[in-house]
Amino acid sequence: MSGRVFADISMSLDGFIAGLNDSVDRLHQWIYDLASWRRAHGLPAGHTGPDDDLMDEAFERAGAVVMGRRMFDLALEPWGDEPPFHKPVFVLTHEAREPLVKGETTFTFVAEGIEKALEQASAAAGEKDVSIAGGAQVIQEALKAGRLDEIQVHVVAVLIGAGIQLFENLGTGPTELECTRVVESPGVVHLRFDVVK
Amino acid sequence: MSGRVFADISMSLDGFIAGLNDSVDRLHQWIYDLASWRRAHGLPAGHTGPDDDLMDEAFERAGAVVMGRRMFDLALEPWGDEPPFHKPVFVLTHEAREPLVKGETTFTFVAEGIEKALEQASAAAGEKDVSIAGGAQVIQEALKAGRLDEIQVHVVAVLIGAGIQLFENLGTGPTELECTRVVESPGVVHLRFDVVK
Repeated sequence: MSGRVFADISMSLDGFIAGLNDSVDRLHQWIYDLASWRRAHGLPAGHTGPDDDLMDEAFERAGAVVMGRRMFDLALEPWGDEPPFHKPVFVLTHEAREPLVKGETTFTFVAEGIEKALEQASAAAGEKDVSIAGGAQVIQEALKAGRLDEIQVHVVAVLIGAGIQLFENLGTGPTELECTRVVESPGVVHLRFDVVK
Repeated sequence: MSGRVFADISMSLDGFIAGLNDSVDRLHQWIYDLASWRRAHGLPAGHTGPDDDLMDEAFERAGAVVMGRRMFDLALEPWGDEPPFHKPVFVLTHEAREPLVKGETTFTFVAEGIEKALEQASAAAGEKDVSIAGGAQVIQEALKAGRLDEIQVHVVAVLIGAGIQLFENLGTGPTELECTRVVESPGVVHLRFDVVK
């Protein structure tokens, strides 16, 4: 039995997951001091509490990660020698390429589209779930393909005004959701939804 | 002392306050059976509970309403002889026009921009607050003018995919918000924010 496919992402109230020039600092501000985030990045200590529990949960349940090529390109250098995944990552791309091993993370490049990427990630994840890390386009593709089971949106209390919107290219008929959890924290409200199929 | 300026509006998780052809039925579905909504529309009975309390609160605190001309044009016929406001309404328009009295609601047309409309509404509201009913453009104008104090977004658990976005034309630098209340209901999460100035 395979797990669920979920996305877990920070979004401003006006729907942006990145500002101009792909900047995410304001949107990820609530994350940087958390123990879970710091541990994944090889850093000591950090804050615990409800925000940290949510991050831990998302990290632990994911047996594999799917992401877009643009996100990979932007983040590879900042990630350094030990990227924060510590599990198989499948990068959706247009050209075939050899896998890249960085510390405990292996990046496999998938040129055959979102379905194939999710299939490979699912196999690698075993009984665990598959996390779609982003960007917006990959999450939209999974939604359109009817393959997204769950989305957790961390609504950050800010209006960014410009940048990359999480849902801007959906253009399909309505997709019903069911809210399954709300967690309120200073500066961010965590909303979890199941995609109704 | 004058009151606060607030907006109170239903929005899909992907940021739309209306779908294609200005349809709002899916987004307002949670409202139609509420006692407060039915009372404002001259209808008997209806459901009570947290959703109803929030609607009541927004109705009671508002001493006057500001709205855009397009919203007025679209809704005037459906409102019938007794529009649901029962208080002074100021309609932002481009051409001067005589006030229109409909039941307990007087519509005054303001051709001098958002600041002037808010000034007149504020005077009419006395110590009560001013509600900006919509549409998106009027709420954006109030935000850009630094005149919006508070916004309550009723996040409806659906992705609409197309239509009118609440925040699509902001294009300004970040506006910080402070979440002041979260109320969770089936199908809708009510998020209230102060605009940090």
